[in-house]
Amino acid sequence: MRFSNIKIKNLVGKYREISLLGKINAVLSWDLEVNLPQKAIEGRAAQIAYLTKLAAERWQDAEFKKLVQDTKSSTLNMQEKAILRNLRQSAKFYFKVPKEIIVEFAETAAKTTVVWGKARKENKFKDFLPSLKKLLELNRIIAEHLGYKDNPYDALLDLYEPGLTVRQCKQIFAKLQPELTSILTKIQKSKNYKNKPDLIEGELDYPVISQEQLCLFVIKRMGYDLDAGRMDNITPAHPFTNELGRFDVRFTNRYDPKDFRESLMTAMHEAGHALYEQGVDEQYSDTPLQGGVSLGIHESQSRFWENQIGRSREFMMFLTPVLHAFYPRQLSKVDADSLFDLFNQVRSSLIRTEADEVTYNLHIALRFELEEALVNAKIEAKDLPEIWRVKMKKYLGVVPKTDREGVLQDVHWSHSPMGYFPTYTLGNLYAAQFTDKMQKELNIDELIEKGELEPILSWLRTNIHRHGSLYWPDELAKKIFGKQLNTEYFLNYLKKKYSKIYGLKLS
Amino acid sequence: MRFSNIKIKNLVGKYREISLLGKINAVLSWDLEVNLPQKAIEGRAAQIAYLTKLAAERWQDAEFKKLVQDTKSSTLNMQEKAILRNLRQSAKFYFKVPKEIIVEFAETAAKTTVVWGKARKENKFKDFLPSLKKLLELNRIIAEHLGYKDNPYDALLDLYEPGLTVRQCKQIFAKLQPELTSILTKIQKSKNYKNKPDLIEGELDYPVISQEQLCLFVIKRMGYDLDAGRMDNITPAHPFTNELGRFDVRFTNRYDPKDFRESLMTAMHEAGHALYEQGVDEQYSDTPLQGGVSLGIHESQSRFWENQIGRSREFMMFLTPVLHAFYPRQLSKVDADSLFDLFNQVRSSLIRTEADEVTYNLHIALRFELEEALVNAKIEAKDLPEIWRVKMKKYLGVVPKTDREGVLQDVHWSHSPMGYFPTYTLGNLYAAQFTDKMQKELNIDELIEKGELEPILSWLRTNIHRHGSLYWPDELAKKIFGKQLNTEYFLNYLKKKYSKIYGLKLS
Repeated sequence: MRFSNIKIKNLVGKYREISLLGKINAVLSWDLEVNLPQKAIEGRAAQIAYLTKLAAERWQDAEFKKLVQDTKSSTLNMQEKAILRNLRQSAKFYFKVPKEIIVEFAETAAKTTVVWGKARKENKFKDFLPSLKKLLELNRIIAEHLGYKDNPYDALLDLYEPGLTVRQCKQIFAKLQPELTSILTKIQKSKNYKNKPDLIEGELDYPVISQEQLCLFVIKRMGYDLDAGRMDNITPAHPFTNELGRFDVRFTNRYDPKDFRESLMTAMHEAGHALYEQGVDEQYSDTPLQGGVSLGIHESQSRFWENQIGRSREFMMFLTPVLHAFYPRQLSKVDADSLFDLFNQVRSSLIRTEADEVTYNLHIALRFELEEALVNAKIEAKDLPEIWRVKMKKYLGVVPKTDREGVLQDVHWSHSPMGYFPTYTLGNLYAAQFTDKMQKELNIDELIEKGELEPILSWLRTNIHRHGSLYWPDELAKKIFGKQLNTEYFLNYLKKKYSKIYGLKLS
Repeated sequence: MRFSNIKIKNLVGKYREISLLGKINAVLSWDLEVNLPQKAIEGRAAQIAYLTKLAAERWQDAEFKKLVQDTKSSTLNMQEKAILRNLRQSAKFYFKVPKEIIVEFAETAAKTTVVWGKARKENKFKDFLPSLKKLLELNRIIAEHLGYKDNPYDALLDLYEPGLTVRQCKQIFAKLQPELTSILTKIQKSKNYKNKPDLIEGELDYPVISQEQLCLFVIKRMGYDLDAGRMDNITPAHPFTNELGRFDVRFTNRYDPKDFRESLMTAMHEAGHALYEQGVDEQYSDTPLQGGVSLGIHESQSRFWENQIGRSREFMMFLTPVLHAFYPRQLSKVDADSLFDLFNQVRSSLIRTEADEVTYNLHIALRFELEEALVNAKIEAKDLPEIWRVKMKKYLGVVPKTDREGVLQDVHWSHSPMGYFPTYTLGNLYAAQFTDKMQKELNIDELIEKGELEPILSWLRTNIHRHGSLYWPDELAKKIFGKQLNTEYFLNYLKKKYSKIYGLKLS
């Protein structure tokens, strides 16, 4: 990139070090989750803490800070303005939170990722509790340092989605929740609900190696560039996507040998994230414009590929012969209609990542409420398993028998500050809204049915990916479909889709 | 560690950052060779270059430099003296070579590792040549900056083995070479030479997965701690061991599906390196006493496990039932005697890593001469393939048909400054000398035959590993066996072993 403004040029030059340190830290984190020998965690956490300290020092460097604070926006061109805006957004964290807290959070989180994995595997919430308490305390401290108007949780939400507040989240869930509960109830009461087929669990198996091959087939079809990324197996841990370099966007998957569906949907979800990173304009590399602009937009990409594409009837028509080829013994008698049903069963289930599109946001509402209550010390970490059960009963009518299927299922609290979960719901809403617009410009259904996904990726690249962090989410939304985010598109999409599936008139 | 001297305490405190940066860079390098997507190499090289710059800056920091230079050794205790001595040894490189050259070497080497791998695979020396020329030029520049008395190559040898010179290497090879050539000739003329069995190539196969399992069985038996390391497959690239953290010492292996021997010997070789690192006193972590003291001693550990143990008759007796269990169809008719022969065939072969113990050091002599000539600009990089063929003919009587089996076979020149190769020969000599001493204290033969390797590792731990870099190689040698390094032990070992195998009287 060329800059007309010398201050921006200086800022971007200095920022390059921050970017490099971030990517190196991503290599350390990726390796921690995929490869790390068990005794190496303390050493790795120290490495991550050290790089985090170096990055914080670069953010807090007096000259850099002064440039970020004093540079005037008025004389800058659009890209330069965006660079300054993004730096100021990220700088909130580094300028306001003391270096020691930033480093302590990073080191604790690195260790906790492993503690959580073990506690989850062994179903021992009490082994996870001390780490969770420490991180929760750090979350509260960070929120206080960041500052807020109404609610300390606002300060954390803003780390993932610029300007997002508790108030906004509550408004969104207030609109979604009654509608989703109503749809769920109608579906559960429908005639068709019990007649829908299911995989015959325990009888058939889907070897991991062939599931991997199937996922590779699909993500290549999506346009994911395997020469600039990898898909690794971290069964049973939590899948994730990470950018280790501009041409090194990796993700992980997990495999259930009794069910091929989860790994395929995970692959499409994570590849959706990865395609976003792989599609950013190359000239933005190592500048504050690189990378997805917010988690809400990021989740719109993952959820779009997982749901709008992966769980569509048209995709099942394309996929059926492929699945027959991969699993002749297991699936040769299952046709596209049945597969469509199998990928769209509405169930009050326990695990968020496996939830259908109707119930998914109820899982998020639960987490949003818990995080808000935790950060505000309205509830204590030790009471989480019980509160989880009560809320699951309330929202989904089911109660996990184990914490592994309850409060221990998600990696997020071990990893990063709270405030991530609501962005999944934003992602679902954005995805529906983008799809509505895309449908007006492309014959999506026909493309999907033929497995011709290139024009779809191309649309995303042109309208979203290439911009990286140039436009903030609301600007991007307005630019693409001339409207702010709202819940209507998503609810209409759900009602239309599930009316058909269950022979109902949802409205 | 506790220090009586405040300057040493300060030095060790500052050194910790250098150590951390080194380990993080090791993660980047390991991942580069094991996992990196092909388009990511430029980005990864930039990351490695950046960390190298940070490390060089810490070495070259005025206060650190002053402490290293001015601290008086006389008032220090033994450990503190060793710390200062080691810092001064490593500091030669960082104090004398400009930061820009250090960074350029690191970045070029990272990229060249990939260039070499591709050139080797495709047998295209000319694709490797530009990178090799650039690195050779940097080697010469580094040698000039380091300074030397007699020969610029001395400056490079010293990076791997403190004080090693061309003169010393020549003396060693002058003793070894005629003897080895004589032994080789006698063996090749012996009646038994042609009667020795060989694997029936092309007819049987040894699946990679079972070779991995066999290697894991053996390295666990050796005492390698898989909770503090990993063994990864990088077929067909060059195997290596790397320390990514005190409890994260990983190595790589490569597999030939037609021959189970190479991967097993490689595993024992690399695990020999890794055991050394895993055995260093924990209190030395992140200090200048951590890690093996020199490459010569390091190679003594790898070559000891590979040859003195792995290629011994006793180990074959232990291994035979194991091999029968792993490969009933392929090996059930092969007894311990035949296996011993199979692992000890003396052959004028093309590949160093596959060479037997008699010819191995002739491969090294060749490389030593080439490196000395290259650094002194007596020969040019472009002429290497032809010179290689001429020298192979002279030393081993065979000529590679392709550069893949010739000058392209080793990764070393792509990786690091020249001067590494002679340490393999030092390792072979040290290994024989250590074994001689060990045999006086332990009933090694009986232990090996029973597969009871723990007392052997324990001996190495006590006498060598735990000391890390506390004693320099000559001190260590004197401490253990009261003598300096010499060639006799190794030649006697060879003559005794191969007299038996070929029914000769080698003397």
